[in-house]
Amino acid sequence: AISWPRLEARLAELARIGDTGDGGCSRLALTDADREGRDLVVSWMRELGLRVDVDGIGNVVGTWPADATEAPVLTGSHIDTVRTGGRYDGNLGVLAGLEAVETIITSGLELARPVAVAFFTGEEGSRFAPDMFGSLVYVGGLPLEEALDTVAVDGAVVGDELERIGYVGPLPCPARPPAAFVELHIEQGPVLEAEGDTIGAVTGVQGISWQEVTVTGQSNHAGTTPMDHRHDPAYVAAALAVFVRELADEAGPPQVATVGRVELHPNLVNVVPARATFTVDLRHTDDDALRAAEEAFAARADALAATEGVTVERRSLARFAPVEFDAGMVDRVERTARARGHSVRRMPSGAGHDAQMLARVCPTAMVFTPSVDGISHNPDEHTLPADLEAGAGVLFDVLVQLATE
Amino acid sequence: AISWPRLEARLAELARIGDTGDGGCSRLALTDADREGRDLVVSWMRELGLRVDVDGIGNVVGTWPADATEAPVLTGSHIDTVRTGGRYDGNLGVLAGLEAVETIITSGLELARPVAVAFFTGEEGSRFAPDMFGSLVYVGGLPLEEALDTVAVDGAVVGDELERIGYVGPLPCPARPPAAFVELHIEQGPVLEAEGDTIGAVTGVQGISWQEVTVTGQSNHAGTTPMDHRHDPAYVAAALAVFVRELADEAGPPQVATVGRVELHPNLVNVVPARATFTVDLRHTDDDALRAAEEAFAARADALAATEGVTVERRSLARFAPVEFDAGMVDRVERTARARGHSVRRMPSGAGHDAQMLARVCPTAMVFTPSVDGISHNPDEHTLPADLEAGAGVLFDVLVQLATE
Ligand SMILES: NC(=O)NCCC(=O)O
Ligand SMILES: NC(=O)NCCC(=O)O
Repeated sequence: AISWPRLEARLAELARIGDTGDGGCSRLALTDADREGRDLVVSWMRELGLRVDVDGIGNVVGTWPADATEAPVLTGSHIDTVRTGGRYDGNLGVLAGLEAVETIITSGLELARPVAVAFFTGEEGSRFAPDMFGSLVYVGGLPLEEALDTVAVDGAVVGDELERIGYVGPLPCPARPPAAFVELHIEQGPVLEAEGDTIGAVTGVQGISWQEVTVTGQSNHAGTTPMDHRHDPAYVAAALAVFVRELADEAGPPQVATVGRVELHPNLVNVVPARATFTVDLRHTDDDALRAAEEAFAARADALAATEGVTVERRSLARFAPVEFDAGMVDRVERTARARGHSVRRMPSGAGHDAQMLARVCPTAMVFTPSVDGISHNPDEHTLPADLEAGAGVLFDVLVQLATE
Repeated sequence: AISWPRLEARLAELARIGDTGDGGCSRLALTDADREGRDLVVSWMRELGLRVDVDGIGNVVGTWPADATEAPVLTGSHIDTVRTGGRYDGNLGVLAGLEAVETIITSGLELARPVAVAFFTGEEGSRFAPDMFGSLVYVGGLPLEEALDTVAVDGAVVGDELERIGYVGPLPCPARPPAAFVELHIEQGPVLEAEGDTIGAVTGVQGISWQEVTVTGQSNHAGTTPMDHRHDPAYVAAALAVFVRELADEAGPPQVATVGRVELHPNLVNVVPARATFTVDLRHTDDDALRAAEEAFAARADALAATEGVTVERRSLARFAPVEFDAGMVDRVERTARARGHSVRRMPSGAGHDAQMLARVCPTAMVFTPSVDGISHNPDEHTLPADLEAGAGVLFDVLVQLATE
């Protein structure tokens, strides 16, 4: 069985890089902190004797045995975080994967095929879109050249940042598909805790639609400009943020809608702004429902643009249809968790995950562990040690099955 | 009479400092650009033989004759701009004042009292609040020590910035009141142009209320957090921005309401924010109406905070009751402009002005010139040369009357 103390110690050591002092972690993709995190995990992979391969978009795969040529059973996740992230989102899947591989190696288990653990570049999508950036390139869903030209919210270019942190590798993209992929992740939502279940057997991932909306009006004086003379992008942005909240409330679960980023220009107290830029994150398990939400938003944006006398441009940052995981793999996760004595819930994922990209090229599944109070993308993100250990144990068993059968 | 070519050349030369390349000007208060603008205007004052005095908050007064001890007739305005400003807001009043003083000097006119031209620190209020910062300190409305400790939106401290640009002077604050004050300014609104009038005889300034609102909620995952689990400060900020727009629309003119500055934290596409900070600018000519708007806003903010489960803190950045200018001074502006053959309109000011602070300590008036399309705080801010010249001529005549009578 896995060594929980070793996994716990590694989780803590990795969390020290980008430590925000409030229990949280800030390692935005391809920043110096991300580099430091990568270097640490790579050093652990090397200590273990894995062959470490890096591809053209900075995805890192550690394979055992080091001279393996066959397609491996792959596990892993990501180690980038949002600016105000926690310590388990992504990191758990990578380090529990590493722990599982280490346990397989040291137990001297006879393998039918290689095992490998990966961390993928820029899964969070918050510095550069789309989310699941590295795994999307890995499976051929985004051409490498286009990916390298992507511009981050801070103006940096992905290709330059990869060079800068020294994570451009020779492995080609798209990669040769693994034999199977299984990812352990915290749920990041309230369901498992509320239902009193320890393990989620993830059936798939809901559809994701990210748009960046730019509203251009006319800057003017806040004191002298009568209300009916205004072409105010900040008002239009606010009205659209209220609209998507109402849209989600009216549609009911599982529809969610979020305006998480807003920038005004020139952003001064006494200036009706010239421009507002904001993002809209819409998600639904049903693609038709998601498309209906996108269309309702577009119609409302166009109508408001006309009445306010502003222009509205919408740019897609990410658009992923709902994904269903391989039925046999989901059953395997459920069966394995039950065999360990855990209460298990089959459930869709609210968050996007690298597994949804891998599902395009190989049988894929995910294991969820509960999130205390359903909080994530927050320094208070937390999962109880017993639940982390339970998840890592299920991941280990599933990997062993896939690698030995 | 004044030299319009000389005034026009100086307006152009000053506008080159902070030139934004699109016809606009960016000289936020106490930045390097502001220092350069100050140095240029001071050099012109010195060339003219004025005595240049600087006070503890960086207000600059050029007096003629240089050895004058009596209270002068004062004119002037400000040379700081918003980040996306035009070239006339404030600058016109300073340079037309300088032109008027120069014309008085070179014409050898016999004066009954000294004349002086001033530029006041940080009138725009967009880098640090309140607006009319320097003139407020000048008249004793804000203690110097408190003023020096004020923190700008970029985190800089006023006292440090004044030291840095070398504009801490020995003149005490509050200053000895001048004999009278008259300020020329562009209207910055649409009224004079719409009514076909050349000169505004400004009767006073409407009340100004600036608040900074901080909404604190709980950051969480945009994909996994059900709508009814959210404590979303961005939603509350948006709902309040829509509320003040509706409030102003329902109240009707002259109520105006603006949300010009918004900042989210962490400001990422897939994170329900932890915090939103935004400003609300409310103005009305009637103080009771302004107070009613403030109260309606506070009530709505508190109600929304309760239903969303967030906290809302409101901090006043500026609160100035409506101001009425000296009746005799307003009549004088109107009479003088008519004597020059201009069509004149008596009108309140929508924007705040240094004159409203000087009005606390001496007879004060303002002269307005039209703004093309009513646009200001915008690089396209424009006033026709003939109107600029007309305004400068009226200012000159009024100054001569006040200095010789
Ligand atoms: N797991 C996770 O937080 N992924 C980030 C992409 C998303 O926003 O769903
Ligand atoms: N004149 C002018 O633009 N003053 C700035 C202060 C205000 O917002 O009214």
